[in-house]
Amino acid sequence: MKHACVPTDHVTDRTVLRRKPGRGTHDRDAIVAIVDEALVCHVGFCPPGETTPCVLPTAHVRIDEHIYLHGAQSNRMLGQLAQGVACCVAITLVDGLVLSRVALHHSVNYRSVVAFGHGTAVDDPELKRRVLAALLDKLCSGRSDACRPPDDAELAATLVVAIPICEASAKIRQGPPLADNGPDATLPYWAGVIPLVTSRATPERAPDCLAALPPELG
Amino acid sequence: MKHACVPTDHVTDRTVLRRKPGRGTHDRDAIVAIVDEALVCHVGFCPPGETTPCVLPTAHVRIDEHIYLHGAQSNRMLGQLAQGVACCVAITLVDGLVLSRVALHHSVNYRSVVAFGHGTAVDDPELKRRVLAALLDKLCSGRSDACRPPDDAELAATLVVAIPICEASAKIRQGPPLADNGPDATLPYWAGVIPLVTSRATPERAPDCLAALPPELG
Repeated sequence: MKHACVPTDHVTDRTVLRRKPGRGTHDRDAIVAIVDEALVCHVGFCPPGETTPCVLPTAHVRIDEHIYLHGAQSNRMLGQLAQGVACCVAITLVDGLVLSRVALHHSVNYRSVVAFGHGTAVDDPELKRRVLAALLDKLCSGRSDACRPPDDAELAATLVVAIPICEASAKIRQGPPLADNGPDATLPYWAGVIPLVTSRATPERAPDCLAALPPELG
Repeated sequence: MKHACVPTDHVTDRTVLRRKPGRGTHDRDAIVAIVDEALVCHVGFCPPGETTPCVLPTAHVRIDEHIYLHGAQSNRMLGQLAQGVACCVAITLVDGLVLSRVALHHSVNYRSVVAFGHGTAVDDPELKRRVLAALLDKLCSGRSDACRPPDDAELAATLVVAIPICEASAKIRQGPPLADNGPDATLPYWAGVIPLVTSRATPERAPDCLAALPPELG
């Protein structure tokens, strides 16, 4: 399965950066880094005949130049994506709260990607296995070797959809609040950034699990 | 500005729970709790004449039965929402990684809301001020009293859009992986949940700020 992709530095009318273009980029590596760090994406699509989009969250993984989604063969969204309905995938990481002396200069530090495209069902069993293994290894490094892999029936019951990352843009806001000018600059309020950090807490063993926690999860 | 809302327990064809309905609810309080905890939402809308949605992240705040968004008057998405284009707002919190002995039983613990509706511009300056204050107080409790409030010109340059939470559903996955059966139950792999926790790190003062960190941010 190969997509004819335009490179991400080919800006289209949909990926031209309208709001605060100074925060945006079409750089492939910047886009890929955000896609890879996020566990979930939000996929927007219009069911056939409708002009109201549906936006649903789902886990994703990237391999090379595609974002892969998966679910049951009966999954409605994946079924429509597999049939090539146009979609928009948005991925957002929130890095911090930006506090200014001025109410309307407050902001959020974030990194986001918006990609437009059409999905394609992945039929090749080997690629499906590779996608599912990559999804597990994204949750926990090496996890695809530390569980029972999909059997043929499970694989057949699973729908994997590929969406090319070829018409995409990223936006990144980092750093302190904008410097204030004039009288605002001497207001007595605190200004700065409160970083937000997502971390993994102590693993909670399933009630029916007897195995010891592997060191890499500890 | 009043919307005629159907209560959220009125299930429509768009909010009927299709995938894993056991994880879903239309309970108003469950929906509101998720909306309130999340800093950002993903808004899907189709620009006029298009059937490909655009999905963009933005900060939001809820007051009573509406989700409020804000931005510059020239913001394209907000402008279209203010004109009543149909939209879908998705909000997702990721709570943990669910590791199973079986590849395809891995999952993510999450809480999500999907709401359908039409936006309306908020014209009333008092409600606009209330929305912007609520946004700040959501970032940091009491922050709207610890900065300079919007002046009339800033308020006029800001577009606030209200989206009713009246056609919405929530989905929640919690707890350990599904219990495994048969030979899978005795596989020697670790199974359980790795909780994900988002926390606020040490505040970083802006370079041009001389004020001491208020105790509530410390």
